[in-house]
Amino acid sequence: MTIAKRKRGCSIPNHNAFGGFPIIVLLLLVCALWFQRNQLTTLLLGPTTTTSEVVLDPPGNTFYDDPQLSYSIEKPLKQWDKKRSDWLQLHPSFAAGAQDRILLVTGSQPSPCKNPIGDHLLLRCFKNKVDYCRIHNCEVYYSNLHLHPKMDSFWSKLPIIRSTMMAHPEVEWIWWLDADAIFADMEFKIPLERYKDHNLVVHGWSNMVYTESENMSWTGLNAGSLLIRNCQWSMDLLHVWAQMGPLSSNYAKWGKILTSTFKDKPFPLPDDQSSLIYLLSKQRRKWGGKTYLEETYDLEGYWIATLGKFEGLKNKYNEIEEEASVLRRRHSEK
Amino acid sequence: MTIAKRKRGCSIPNHNAFGGFPIIVLLLLVCALWFQRNQLTTLLLGPTTTTSEVVLDPPGNTFYDDPQLSYSIEKPLKQWDKKRSDWLQLHPSFAAGAQDRILLVTGSQPSPCKNPIGDHLLLRCFKNKVDYCRIHNCEVYYSNLHLHPKMDSFWSKLPIIRSTMMAHPEVEWIWWLDADAIFADMEFKIPLERYKDHNLVVHGWSNMVYTESENMSWTGLNAGSLLIRNCQWSMDLLHVWAQMGPLSSNYAKWGKILTSTFKDKPFPLPDDQSSLIYLLSKQRRKWGGKTYLEETYDLEGYWIATLGKFEGLKNKYNEIEEEASVLRRRHSEK
Repeated sequence: MTIAKRKRGCSIPNHNAFGGFPIIVLLLLVCALWFQRNQLTTLLLGPTTTTSEVVLDPPGNTFYDDPQLSYSIEKPLKQWDKKRSDWLQLHPSFAAGAQDRILLVTGSQPSPCKNPIGDHLLLRCFKNKVDYCRIHNCEVYYSNLHLHPKMDSFWSKLPIIRSTMMAHPEVEWIWWLDADAIFADMEFKIPLERYKDHNLVVHGWSNMVYTESENMSWTGLNAGSLLIRNCQWSMDLLHVWAQMGPLSSNYAKWGKILTSTFKDKPFPLPDDQSSLIYLLSKQRRKWGGKTYLEETYDLEGYWIATLGKFEGLKNKYNEIEEEASVLRRRHSEK
Repeated sequence: MTIAKRKRGCSIPNHNAFGGFPIIVLLLLVCALWFQRNQLTTLLLGPTTTTSEVVLDPPGNTFYDDPQLSYSIEKPLKQWDKKRSDWLQLHPSFAAGAQDRILLVTGSQPSPCKNPIGDHLLLRCFKNKVDYCRIHNCEVYYSNLHLHPKMDSFWSKLPIIRSTMMAHPEVEWIWWLDADAIFADMEFKIPLERYKDHNLVVHGWSNMVYTESENMSWTGLNAGSLLIRNCQWSMDLLHVWAQMGPLSSNYAKWGKILTSTFKDKPFPLPDDQSSLIYLLSKQRRKWGGKTYLEETYDLEGYWIATLGKFEGLKNKYNEIEEEASVLRRRHSEK
């Protein structure tokens, strides 16, 4: 049997390669105070570059070798738990610690933000997430693509979550965070032990989700920060959930159902959040049992509501640090 | 002896904490096609939040416990090799593999880019770097601060590099990349073995750096992509190098020296790149011996010069993949 190989992560500099194609390309944005060297890198292309080598990969077939395998959100994915488990068996270095591994996923639209300050804030929000992930040893992926042409806006995260699950069988959890969210507590750690019997964790309130009354609200949970387990249950949920979105021929019909269900929903077409609450509420036995509505701490919060709390927070931290001076001891970031 | 503790990475949700301060704050940028839920998270702040606990840290003193320790680029740091080595001995989990560990460092100015498309491109450039680092298991840090008020523009990287060295004694190398640089070859891996006897690696040409002739050019190397070892030699270089920058009372004087040295230098004040070439050239024995001018592949290149090469590159990759079909085998990102 031929030993399967693939190229990955082992390119080395080589004199005989692709005619001076550079490893790194400098774009020269000519930003104020920073990129003042716009003639600097012109003509710096040298005559040589790198090439790629191949590394050994387990020869055994994995689900990736199935030519029918599709990343499309429109096609159901079956037997994912077995496929993922088989892959982990073939990759024992990833199997160790897999059960607590989180991939933080976020993203924004491919085009520039129309708000003049928008992309600057997106950049800072992304830096904040990367900082959090570096401190907590978790990976982060930023999508700037719509993986399904009709699934844009808030719907775009569904195909992204599905694809990252498939591309990252080594992670147990996908933590979706909206691009405009920032970590206010960089030391926060997700209490995974609490969620060991659940597949979906969202900040929400059961009395606003699991109710038939007027109390039902499209803000009964917030889908801007959600933790979803990399398993068949989640694949099934994503498939059903996506059927309420713009890829469905019933999109407008779902809009009518949702606006009649949620009296406070401010626009007629379906959004991912109302749709998720609807699914949980109407098919509670199917989806509710494995969904953890986190009410005991703020997995997310609206920024205006937090502004008045910074001062009090600072004072309480100061009190704690005065009692335990060792907390002020300097240390490495890690 | 009291066991030293510090708070880090172990916050857990707690009912009795800081009055509903959220873990994650949603900013709601209201970007087109994406952030269409600007009323969504209002009032979602719950009544409870997280608190922090403390974790055990080695009780032995490290260099961080020295009250005289300064992160300032203006103060020389002495005995860094011993300090770092002692720290690693106290943190054996980081000592393993430390010699090949790279921290990729990049950054841009604190304020929005004045070019309307600038921040969007910075966001995409940062995504590209984060993707590269995720694939290659290396950490990445984005600075959006000027750590010395006078060291802005291209000079800002010197205090940033110095500080990240101090904050990350677990890494052997800092790889500085300008914010506007992108990886064109995501499979490229820095050939560290080649640089084992050097402390600084830059893309450059010795006949344009180590010369007294008219051939001397301020583009004899490119300081936009440099690899610098986390060691005393580098601390010393940064200190001397910074003395040619805007924090020095001799700043204007250095500008005159540099413009008379480099006939092609297009502006009168010192820049970091000309200054580095000047130091290497004038104090070759002191700095040149440990500096590797990489000429055999393109550690960076100017984007316009690469445009015509993509087609040829694609064709050569196609040829390779036709011969070795296993390269087209699908696999996980990791």
